[in-house]
This record gives sequence, C-alpha cells and structure tokens, in this order.
Amino acid sequence: MTSPDIAPAAALRSPVEELLRKAAEIAGDYLRGNADRELPVARFLPPDELRAILRLDLPTEGRPLDSLLGDMSQVLHHSVRTGHPRFLNQLYGGFDAAAILGEWIVALTNTSMYTYEVAPVATLMEIELIRRMSLLAGFENGEGVFAPGGSLSNLMGVLAARHHAFPHVKKEGLKPEDRPAMFVSTEAHYSLERAAAIAGFGTDSVIKVATDGDGGMRVDALESAVRKAQAAGRRPFLVAATSGTTVPGAFDPLSEVADVAERHRLWLHVDAAYGGAVLFSRKHRHLVDGISGADSIAWNPHKMMGVPLSCSATLLSRKGALEETLGMHADYLFHGADDDSCGHDLGDLSVQCGRRVDALKLWFSWQALGDSGYEARVDRLFHLARTFRDRIVERPGFRLVREPQSANVCFRYLPSAPTGGDRLAAESEATVRIRNRLLAKGRFMINYAPLDGAATFRLVLSNPQTSVEDLEALLDEIEAAA
Amino acid sequence: MTSPDIAPAAALRSPVEELLRKAAEIAGDYLRGNADRELPVARFLPPDELRAILRLDLPTEGRPLDSLLGDMSQVLHHSVRTGHPRFLNQLYGGFDAAAILGEWIVALTNTSMYTYEVAPVATLMEIELIRRMSLLAGFENGEGVFAPGGSLSNLMGVLAARHHAFPHVKKEGLKPEDRPAMFVSTEAHYSLERAAAIAGFGTDSVIKVATDGDGGMRVDALESAVRKAQAAGRRPFLVAATSGTTVPGAFDPLSEVADVAERHRLWLHVDAAYGGAVLFSRKHRHLVDGISGADSIAWNPHKMMGVPLSCSATLLSRKGALEETLGMHADYLFHGADDDSCGHDLGDLSVQCGRRVDALKLWFSWQALGDSGYEARVDRLFHLARTFRDRIVERPGFRLVREPQSANVCFRYLPSAPTGGDRLAAESEATVRIRNRLLAKGRFMINYAPLDGAATFRLVLSNPQTSVEDLEALLDEIEAAA
Repeated sequence: MTSPDIAPAAALRSPVEELLRKAAEIAGDYLRGNADRELPVARFLPPDELRAILRLDLPTEGRPLDSLLGDMSQVLHHSVRTGHPRFLNQLYGGFDAAAILGEWIVALTNTSMYTYEVAPVATLMEIELIRRMSLLAGFENGEGVFAPGGSLSNLMGVLAARHHAFPHVKKEGLKPEDRPAMFVSTEAHYSLERAAAIAGFGTDSVIKVATDGDGGMRVDALESAVRKAQAAGRRPFLVAATSGTTVPGAFDPLSEVADVAERHRLWLHVDAAYGGAVLFSRKHRHLVDGISGADSIAWNPHKMMGVPLSCSATLLSRKGALEETLGMHADYLFHGADDDSCGHDLGDLSVQCGRRVDALKLWFSWQALGDSGYEARVDRLFHLARTFRDRIVERPGFRLVREPQSANVCFRYLPSAPTGGDRLAAESEATVRIRNRLLAKGRFMINYAPLDGAATFRLVLSNPQTSVEDLEALLDEIEAAA
Repeated sequence: MTSPDIAPAAALRSPVEELLRKAAEIAGDYLRGNADRELPVARFLPPDELRAILRLDLPTEGRPLDSLLGDMSQVLHHSVRTGHPRFLNQLYGGFDAAAILGEWIVALTNTSMYTYEVAPVATLMEIELIRRMSLLAGFENGEGVFAPGGSLSNLMGVLAARHHAFPHVKKEGLKPEDRPAMFVSTEAHYSLERAAAIAGFGTDSVIKVATDGDGGMRVDALESAVRKAQAAGRRPFLVAATSGTTVPGAFDPLSEVADVAERHRLWLHVDAAYGGAVLFSRKHRHLVDGISGADSIAWNPHKMMGVPLSCSATLLSRKGALEETLGMHADYLFHGADDDSCGHDLGDLSVQCGRRVDALKLWFSWQALGDSGYEARVDRLFHLARTFRDRIVERPGFRLVREPQSANVCFRYLPSAPTGGDRLAAESEATVRIRNRLLAKGRFMINYAPLDGAATFRLVLSNPQTSVEDLEALLDEIEAAA
C-alpha cells in the first residue's frame, strides 16, 4: 500500500534526492549494527579473494545512479567495522554521529580552506577550534591550522623549528655549517624521522634518547645526548617529546623536557597526536603538565576524541611562526588588503594549497559532546584500560608487558612456558599466531607490535561503547585461539 | 495526518537514524538548489559580521543531536555554493552525487589507508584507480597513492627526484657538494617552490624558466637555464613541467621538455593537478603528449573531474620509487610476511601515516560517469571556454588577455581608456573593483589574479551545468558593475 501523503512527495524527488534518502537509510542500518556484538568486526579476505568478489573495474560507460546503492552495501559489508566495540586495533575507533553529519556537510559544500571568501563558515570554525584547543594547551597567543594527519603536523613542527634555528634554509637551503641535530625518544613515532628525511637533514640527524621502564623519555639521557651532539660539532635545535606513544601510550615528562629545552635553547615540539585529548580530563591532564611550555604541538581529534579521519591540529605558541616558515604569498590566490577577508585567509599557514575542510566535523562533534563529553570519553577509556590491566594481571598465562599510562594495554599470552626454549621468542610467536587467528575469525580486531623484545598485543580502548564484558570475551577468545 | 505504514517504522528509529534521515532531506533540498539561478552563489559577509550571526562558540556541555540540523541549515545557507553553475572562482566546482555518496560512506566506515587489513576495500579501490590512471598517462609499470592535495603530490615528486639524484639525503642529509637546481616555468604553481623550501634546498634552488605568449615553458630557455646552472657549479636534477597552469590553464610542451630532461638526465615531474583530466578526451589529450615520458605526475580528480576535495593522485613511472624515497618500515604497523595482506599495505608510499580514504569517492564517481562521462565533461568545459572567449573578443570594452588553451579564460574589462593615464593600471584597478562588487552582490563568483602586468579576471569553467546564458549574464553583470 502506498500512503497518499508520502507518494506525491516521493514522486517529486529527483534521482539525486532519492539516492541520498536511500543512502541515509542504509547508513542508519549500518550504524545501528555497530551495537550488535553478533556482527563481525572484520571479514578478512586476502586481496585476491576480495578482489574477485568485489569486481572493482572502472567502466568505460557510466552506470545508473541508483545502482550505486548496491555498491554501497557491498562496501559496508566488506569494510572493517571500526565503530564496533570490539574493534581495538588502532588509535582510532568508535563513531560519533554528529561528526559524521559534519562530514556529510563537508561533502555537500565542497570547498577549500585556503581563503576565507570560498570557505567563510569553515574558516571561522577552524579559527574558533584552534583558539580553544590552544587555550586548553596553555597557548595564550597561539595560532594553528588543521593538517591531514599527525605525520604532517609533526612535519610542520619540525619545519617551524628548522626555520627558527636556521632561518636561511627557506631561501638559501641548508649550509655545511648547519649540522642540525634533533632529539626524540626511542619510542617516538616514525613520522619524526621521516620529517627529518623530508626536511633534508637526513635520519642520521635524529638522535634517539632512551626511555624509562614505562616508555617515557629519560631526561638525564636527553641532557647527555644534547651535550654529546654539541661536543661532536652538531647544532641541537629541536626536541620532540611525545604525549601518548604509539604502542604503549606512554607520556614523556614534558616539564622536565622543557627545562632541558630551555637550557639548550631547543625548540620543543610535542607530538600529542594521540594524548592531547587528556587536556579535557581533570583526572588525567597531569600527564601533559608542562605542555604550555611547548613551541608547537600536534594533536589529533581523530584519535581519542572519536572524530573521523583526518582531523589533526598543528598548534604553535607564537602567532606568525607558520606563515614565516611556509608562506609563499601567492598573489593569484591571496588578495591581501584588496578584499574584506581581514587577514582570515589560512592558506599560507599550511604545507598544502587546496585543503579539505577538516574543522567542520570537529565543530559538530564538539556541539554534541561539549568539553564535558570529551572528558567523560577520556575518563571512560582510561578506566576500561585500567580494568583490563587488572584482568591481565589476575588471569593465568597472561603477562602485562608495560604498566599502562593511558588507554593502551600491552600484553602477551603464553599458557605454558616452552621446555628448554626461549620464553620471549615463544611469547612473540604466540602473539602473531593468536592474532592472525582472531583476525580470521573476525569477532575481535586487536593489533600487535614489537615491544621489549617480542611481538606484543596492543589493546587500544577508543570506543566508549566497549564494555568490560567485551574485554573478558577477548581474553576468552585469546585463550581459545591459543 | 500520520500515515499508518510510516509511523511505526519512524518510531523504531534511533536518534542517530532520525538525524541521518533528516540530514538527507536537507541535503537533497540543498543540491536541488544548485540548479536554481535565483539562489545566490555566495552571501559574502566580512568575518566579524558572519561571526556575530553564527555564534560559533564551543559549549562546555553537549547539545541534543537533533538540534544540529539547525546548524546544518545555517552552515549551508552561509557557505559558498561551489556547486552553483555561476561559481566560476576556483579550479574546482560543480558537484557529483555519486562522489558525494562516496564521501558519506567514507565517514561511516572511518578508516586509514596505511594497511590493507583495516582498509581492505578502499585499498583495492585505490590500487585499481592508480592502475587505470597510470595506464591513461602511459605508465605501463607505475605505482602511486593518493595525497591530500596537489601541493603534497608535487612535494612527493620533488622528494622522489631528490632521492633519485641524491640518494644519501634520506639518511645523511644534504651535502655541501650537492648544490641541487630544479627548473619550473615562471607560471608554475607556488607549491613547487615551497617543496624546495621544505626539502631543504631553499627557494633559490628553483630556477624559473620563461614562458611563451600562451604561458607554456620555453624549451630553449630551459636548455640555456640548465647549461647556465651547470656552468655555475650547480647540479640540475629536476624539471617540473605544468599541464594546466593555475591562472591561464596553459600546458607546457611535454615532449620537448622531456627531450631536454633526457639530454641532461633530469627527473621529469609533471604537475597535471589541473590538466590531467584531458587524458580522457580524444579531442584534447594532445595537450599532454609526451606525459608518458615523465618520472612522476600529480593529477587531481578534485579539479576538472568534479570529485570533492581532496583527491590527488601521485603517480610514479617506476614501481618502488615511493617506498625508497619515503619508506620507514615501521614495524609496529606493517607486519610484512606475518599476515596475509600480500604486500598490499600502502602506508610506506606516503608522506602521511594515518591517511583518509580519498579513493572511494573517485571510484563511485567513475562508476556513475565512466571514462566517457569524464570525456564529455572535459569536452563540455573546453567548449564553454571557447564560446566565452569568442564573446569576449566580440564584445566592446572586453579584452582577452591570453588565448585560452583549456577551461580558463583570462580577460579584463575597461569600457573607456583613461585620458592620459596608464591603461594597464586602469584595467587592473577596474578588475579588482568590479570583482569585489560581483562578490558583494553574490550572483556570480569569479576570481582574479595578476597576469601580464595587471589584475585579470580568471574565469574557470568547472561545472558542466554552466550554460552559455550564464556566461552572457556574467558579461552583462560585469558591465553593470563597472
């Protein structure tokens, strides 16, 4: 039966409107499924098998618009459900309906963040977000922009540091006497080494500082590394500390690192891509005490804050630093005083020219959650990690590898030690074997990484919908898979 | 009246499903408006006025989900309608419903392109798209990835060229004897200079080669610039040619540039961010004859192909080049032979780590349009540009500044020459004045840029829905505004 008050409206809809309406229905079903533990997290298939099912050929002639809804269902079916409470694999996960709505709007209004005049609303949103995030970090007079990911925010930090110490490089290039040296902990993210490679220093200029047992940078080791580099004729210019390391989620002691930085006049960059979100939590923000002493910060709302990829803020403590580092003042694009944008063009603060709107989804998310919602989210994830840690310690066969500082728990499982063999090697082998079985089964997705000499499970709590029962079930599943 | 067969279903919907369903209705209305010439393209307001209207404050406590629909309508109302047929302001414009659907799916399935296991469908789509785009460009054995914009694709080309010529830089940094020199035309995009700054050479290493009257690089000037740099003790390593320059949309003569590159063993990068799309057109692909001789190409489907920002392919002629240049082999992320991804992890081919899925929207767009749809699009845009050029030449007071080669038309308007004054200065002043009046009025949006000594209107045809009547109306509007 067709209801009389619906049919005429439907008949008036264009194919585009019909497409979006039906897509929204499918989307709603899909997101509802994220609460269903019976649905698999992943349906892993090796590339050739998946390719045979999907038939991804690009046609010479176009297909009807409504046939794309079948493709949509197919894509959703074979994609990893990163919004599922048992997706524990990456530093992102869960989902945020307000942020998804934001992304939908970004697609509709398709524009670029280089000038205010083509992106007036998004530019004002970005400026407001950067202002608030800067204040949270303690930058009273800061500036910043969004970048497509933490690696590029880290690169921007490295480039700003380079420009500060070696301002001639932008125009004249590196000089033989520059010999820059930068410092990171042994557990820092690889994007910092890649930034050194990109920037022309080479990875040899990255000096790795030892960590303590929890994964935080050892400040005494930093101090002596700086002195040693100086003695070798190098010019230390940057220390990049980490708030929330990639594998164990550890926090470098920022206040102490800042002291060393100040003593030796080093730029302090903080890679808080993962851990920046603790600034919302009264309970946990002590982990980043000292962050206000940084010169630059990378902070990704697409990680612990649950906004879809990518959303990465690059924050600088001093206004003007980004434009001095990256500005090219292209006169075809930026009209200066010839229009009414009043200095609101963000293009020259970025490594990009055309830049997708990544601010809008965060603005929508922030409206729905508020500061207090992010605080609750962080506290919940840390609490789950603590709970899981306790289960690991209690349960036979499981070994906690690091004392968790945040929302990551690193552990291994070996029900019985090998007779006469190498226990660490056996734990490592078991981790990989069990993990691949879990992935093949698809009921949980949890990653592993080398840590303290062996492949180690890295559980990441990213989704507040994950329950203690989910975590218990994971341990059962690991036992069964072993 | 509530219809009985609709109400029960609606009652079962969760708030999230309701939100998405209503958002789709608003989205449908909005996109229908893109065909309505009575709706303004832009409602320009200076930042402070717009800020006062929008009240963008970030709340401490979250707001109800359904209240965000009001914000959605507000955002749409104040954003520039880049999908409007009278938006002629940037190298992007129009809209593609299939690609928008693709973006909606990307938001739902939120994942990162670094590993096959978390992005299996998107990874296979990207590989297929890169394969087809490479074949169109004549790379039989190429490789590539998507990057967030043409500037970063250009940076990747520069870095790959650097690694080819100076392979020690990645590890050891630039050496005093390196003295690199790269060559671009005077009308090349500024991102190439910025790439030189980022890469540590400095902008002084970028040697600008003169163009001919149409804006194409002069090959004789390139040859002598290379010889001069060699004589000065520099090491020429890269020429970056442009297919579709930013302002007049000009094409460098690739075959001849390739000859010079081969003779002097320079890496040939082609910035085809804008013009790559001509590869679909039997009629216009001659503009990029010789592109198969390139070593790397930047090509943005978010420009002439109509896909939402950002979607930028970085194509390399040789498999392995990107990983050699950028690979860091992070063992926490890439498991090598320990899983069944069979070498399908794309993360080490990128300057990013976490990377948003930009391939999916292009895959959906390609399904709806096919090769033939892109061909028709390119041909239509070029035809419109030609038609507009003819109108400019015919109409009194208008002056064609460059003979258009593609979808851009550069012109000025001055109804009567100044008595005893500088005509060029008067044209320049008129361009800025008229343009700002047009923007304030909001019925058209067209940009200007300095070209051949004066501010010049740059009309960009990006939307196949733009009609000849729209273009006539623009000329009338310019006359009225002057």
